[in-house]
Amino acid sequence: MKIAIVSGKAEGPTKLNAFDNALSDAGIGDVNLIKVSSMLAGNTEIEELPKLKAGSMVNCVLSEITSDNPGDTITAVIAVAIGEKLGCVVETNGINKKESELIIEAQNMVKYMMDKRSVEIKDMITESSTATVENIASVVGSVIYLEDEIIEG
Amino acid sequence: MKIAIVSGKAEGPTKLNAFDNALSDAGIGDVNLIKVSSMLAGNTEIEELPKLKAGSMVNCVLSEITSDNPGDTITAVIAVAIGEKLGCVVETNGINKKESELIIEAQNMVKYMMDKRSVEIKDMITESSTATVENIASVVGSVIYLEDEIIEG
Amino acid sequence: MKIAIVSGKAEGPTKLNAFDNALSDAGIGDVNLIKVSSMLAGNTEIEELPKLKAGSMVNCVLSEITSDNPGDTITAVIAVAIGEKLGCVVETNGINKKESELIIEAQNMVKYMMDKRSVEIKDMITESSTATVENIASVVGSVIYLEDEIIEG
Repeated sequence: MKIAIVSGKAEGPTKLNAFDNALSDAGIGDVNLIKVSSMLAGNTEIEELPKLKAGSMVNCVLSEITSDNPGDTITAVIAVAIGEKLGCVVETNGINKKESELIIEAQNMVKYMMDKRSVEIKDMITESSTATVENIASVVGSVIYLEDEIIEG
Repeated sequence: MKIAIVSGKAEGPTKLNAFDNALSDAGIGDVNLIKVSSMLAGNTEIEELPKLKAGSMVNCVLSEITSDNPGDTITAVIAVAIGEKLGCVVETNGINKKESELIIEAQNMVKYMMDKRSVEIKDMITESSTATVENIASVVGSVIYLEDEIIEG
Repeated sequence: MKIAIVSGKAEGPTKLNAFDNALSDAGIGDVNLIKVSSMLAGNTEIEELPKLKAGSMVNCVLSEITSDNPGDTITAVIAVAIGEKLGCVVETNGINKKESELIIEAQNMVKYMMDKRSVEIKDMITESSTATVENIASVVGSVIYLEDEIIEG
């Protein structure tokens, strides 16, 4: 299994458009995201996000938060733990919470998940995106499951 | 890529059953809907909804709203923009909002999405469903992604 | 079409971890769950849950409820009706509601769905999970769609 870990942030004229702009900023704006519940196969490899085919169906774990309250600080976090037998992903987000605390929360949750499954963590990756809302803003973090048929070229 | 654009509305004895009846009214009651995030491939073709195989897994964009407050006017809207390189879908809905205003909102959001991607709109289609709630009612609008394996016959 | 019907319950240090532990208790903690909208093909067969491949993409209907309010009784219910032409699934859940009443509600909703489609019920199966919250707890019930590529072996 191969995955890419991405994040993005953007303002927009509506909440939907701010969210859509944040997805584009993360490089995943032109595909259909299908949300899945966050498990990885054993020895999952992490790659750079390739160019994806427009309109293709892409499995992902998505962390997102959108706010139209100017001055809010919004943060989306993804924590990924890789193991030999399997891996786990945790997504969390917050409004007006410290990015560093949200990252620690996510890391603790994913560590607990690996512990519970008695799988040693070989690698842990955290990705986060934070923004202070000007008018309407959105931040996203995502794990993209890379399958051959969604990759352009 | 081929899609069908459908809508439906219905009353029912519970919210779940009203929603299920509205899906049946739209012709998509006997399949499993998997919600995706609203992008289309280039030059997507729009077709009449064919007969779908019962129980098949069908990717869709879904706009739906259900209310058990008699007298409410509920409206679900889908706006689809087709372009050469890609297309976009917006879904929105509202309670006691004018159908015409919701349609314009959806069209503006989808135009903005296409603009942001620098893709010219070759065709724009809007579908909406509205109802005044008697007891418990649901309205739905949907873009159904048509793949060979979900079509009966 | 083949399905398995499972349920689980667990406590955990966070809501996310309680939910994850409940999925593991149900035997579906190591896969990616993709939620679908609850229709079955004709003459669907019910099987024991096989060992699933870690990280595989698994279509399911999921009933879940998680609470961090000690003393709450939480219940998740799945009702499955099998017919010759198609089948239906209903999921419901509740806090501090009688399990027996939630089961009857779910059964009534799924009977109504089959009636509306003029399909005779050949078999009806109900699965439920209930727990009283100590600190943070989650209960789940699920219909897992079994496809060859998700089964280990």
